[in-house]
Amino acid sequence: MTLEQALSSIIEIDKDFYNQAKERTANLIMPPRAMGRLNDISEQLCAVSRTLKPSTANKAVFVMAGDHGIAAKGVSAFPQEVTLQMMGAFMDGMATINAVSRAAGVKIFLTDVGTLHNMPDVTLSADAEFFQRKLGYGTKDFSTEPAMTHKQAEDCIMAGFQVTSEQIKKHKLTLVATGDMGIGNTTPSSAIGAVITGESVEAVTGAGSGISGERIRKKIELIKQGIELNKPDKNDGIDILAKVGGFEIGAIAGTILAAAYHRIPVVVDGIISTAGAMIAAKISPASLGYMIAGHASEEPGHRIMLKYLGLLPVLDLGMRLGEGTGAVAAMRVVELAAAVIRDVATFEEAAVSGKRDD
Amino acid sequence: MTLEQALSSIIEIDKDFYNQAKERTANLIMPPRAMGRLNDISEQLCAVSRTLKPSTANKAVFVMAGDHGIAAKGVSAFPQEVTLQMMGAFMDGMATINAVSRAAGVKIFLTDVGTLHNMPDVTLSADAEFFQRKLGYGTKDFSTEPAMTHKQAEDCIMAGFQVTSEQIKKHKLTLVATGDMGIGNTTPSSAIGAVITGESVEAVTGAGSGISGERIRKKIELIKQGIELNKPDKNDGIDILAKVGGFEIGAIAGTILAAAYHRIPVVVDGIISTAGAMIAAKISPASLGYMIAGHASEEPGHRIMLKYLGLLPVLDLGMRLGEGTGAVAAMRVVELAAAVIRDVATFEEAAVSGKRDD
Repeated sequence: MTLEQALSSIIEIDKDFYNQAKERTANLIMPPRAMGRLNDISEQLCAVSRTLKPSTANKAVFVMAGDHGIAAKGVSAFPQEVTLQMMGAFMDGMATINAVSRAAGVKIFLTDVGTLHNMPDVTLSADAEFFQRKLGYGTKDFSTEPAMTHKQAEDCIMAGFQVTSEQIKKHKLTLVATGDMGIGNTTPSSAIGAVITGESVEAVTGAGSGISGERIRKKIELIKQGIELNKPDKNDGIDILAKVGGFEIGAIAGTILAAAYHRIPVVVDGIISTAGAMIAAKISPASLGYMIAGHASEEPGHRIMLKYLGLLPVLDLGMRLGEGTGAVAAMRVVELAAAVIRDVATFEEAAVSGKRDD
Repeated sequence: MTLEQALSSIIEIDKDFYNQAKERTANLIMPPRAMGRLNDISEQLCAVSRTLKPSTANKAVFVMAGDHGIAAKGVSAFPQEVTLQMMGAFMDGMATINAVSRAAGVKIFLTDVGTLHNMPDVTLSADAEFFQRKLGYGTKDFSTEPAMTHKQAEDCIMAGFQVTSEQIKKHKLTLVATGDMGIGNTTPSSAIGAVITGESVEAVTGAGSGISGERIRKKIELIKQGIELNKPDKNDGIDILAKVGGFEIGAIAGTILAAAYHRIPVVVDGIISTAGAMIAAKISPASLGYMIAGHASEEPGHRIMLKYLGLLPVLDLGMRLGEGTGAVAAMRVVELAAAVIRDVATFEEAAVSGKRDD
C-alpha cells in the first residue's frame, strides 16, 4: 500500500454512532453525564469503532525508535548510546514502559525506524516484540540541513503504518497507544510544534530529559536556526517531517494513521507522540477523530500542541518520560469509559426512578 | 474492638521506607522523577505498606449506604427510594460501579449502615457482596435536630471499620477504595466540609446529583440552619458526624481507619467519601498518610476539602457520581505507580548510561 492509498481510505469517525451513544449515555442510571470526561470518551469510542459496545480487550503500545543528528549538538541530558541501551531494556522487560504495560495488560511492539546502531538479533522476548525497519542511521542535523529526504519522510510514516497495521490484524487489537524512544527527540518535536502552531520556539521548547539554563537556550537557538534554514511549508506535513522531524516521529504518525484506517482508537503519549499526531492530522485531518490525548506532559510545548489539535488530555500527572508510558496509563481510564457505555444499565433496564423535575 | 482501641493502633506511615523508596526512584532508568505524580504515589505506597515491592493484586471498593432525614426537604434531584433501587442495581451488576470495578478487577462490598428500607435477602451475587449493619432507618433531619446520637456516630464508624477489616483479612486486600450511596448525602458532606475547613457554606455547596437555582439556595439555607442549631465542635470528629453527618459518611471513615490499621493504601472517592476522610483525619491524624485522593469532583466543596487535607487528586475528569467510581478509576493509576517502583530497573541493574552533567 502507498501512503496515498492509506490516506484515501481514512474517513471521519461515525456521527450516527456518536449520536446513538449520546442518547444511551443520557439514559444510564446516573445523574446526567455524571461520569464527566469518561462519558465523552465513551461516545468517541463508539463513533470510532462503529458500535455501542466498544471493546478494549486487545491492547498494544507501538514504540518507535530513532536517533537524531542534532543530538550531537548537546540538546539532550543523555548520551546517544542510551537510545540503543533503552531498546535493550524494553526487550529485557526492565524499563518503565514494560512495568506499566505488564500491569495494564498491554503488548509492546518496538520498531527501529532509524537508530544509530543495530540491535542485537533478538526480535521476540517475553516482554516485547522487535521490528527492524530502519530508514537510516539517525537523521541529519536539521540545524544545518534537512533531517531527511522527502522520500524518507513518506517511508518512515509507512513503516509505522505497516508495522501497526500488521499487528492490529494479527492480534485483533481494539485499542492502541503510541510511544517513542530517541535521545534528542524533544528537539524536532518542539520544532514541529512551533512550525504548525505558529507559536514561538521559546514557548514550545523545554528541558526534555533534564537540561537547564544555557543548554535550553542553545536548544532554542538550534531549532530557530533549523526552521529559518529549511523553511518547512507549514501546510505540508511531509515537508515539515522531512526538514525538522525525526524518523520515529514519522512512524508514530504512521501508527495513528493505521489506527484510523482500521477504525480503532489510538491513545497519544507526550510531546514526541503529539508531534507525530500533528503530522498525521496535517496529512489526514479525518485521523484526528481517532486520537485520544493520553496526558499533559511537563514539557511546555505539549499543552500548546494539544490545544492546537483540540485534544483534552486524560491525565495530568506531571509525567515527562515518553516510551508510551503516559498513553498506557491513560488507556486504563479509556478502558473504563468503554465499560461505562457498554455495561451500565439504563433507568428503564434497571427499573430505577429517574430525576425529578426542579 | 472499640473505636478507641482501633485508633490507638493506627500509627504514621513509615519514614524509613519512604526514604528508601525515594532513593530507589532516583536511580530508576528514567530522567529524574520523570513519572511525576506516579513517582510520588509509588513512595507513598512503600511508606504505607512497609515494603519496596508494593502489591496491588487484591483490590476492593467498600460502598457504604445510608439515607438522610434532610432529604425530605428536597435537597436532592432524586427521590429517596433511589437509594434502595441503586443498591439492588449494585447487587445485580447493572450500575456504574459494577461496570468500572469489573473492568478494573475490583471486588465490591456493599454495606447498609442506615437506609430507610431493607434490602431483599440477597447477600451475595456474582457482582457484589452485601452486609447488613443498620444503625437506624435514615438519619434525623439535621436542620432541625442532630442527625444521630453520639453513640450512633461511633457505631457507624465501627460498622465500617469492622466490615472493611474482616474483608481485608479474608481476601488479603492490598488496596481498597471508598464509595457511597445515599440520596441527599452531598448535603451532610458539605456541612462537614464547612465546619471543618471554616469555609462558607456557599463555597462548599453545589448541585449534588443535579439541582439548580432556588433548590441550591434552599440546600445552603438548610445546612446553615443545621450548623447554627447543632453547633458541632469543629475539633471533635464524632460530634460533627453526629450532628450534621450521615451513617454512610461515618462508615466511610471506618473503612479508611481500617485501611490505616492494616497498613494498606485507601483511595478516597468524591465529596461524600472526602467528608468521611475529614472525620477519619480528625479522630486519627495518622490515618491521613494512608489516603490517596482518587479524583477532583465537579462538586465545588470537594477541591476545598481536599486542599484542606493536603491531598492532591489523581484524576480530574469532571466526575460527580459517587458509588466509589472515581476511586476505582484512580486505582488503575495507583496500580501503575506500584508497578513502577516494584518493576523498573535501576541504571546499574540495566547497564544504561546515566545523565550527563550540565
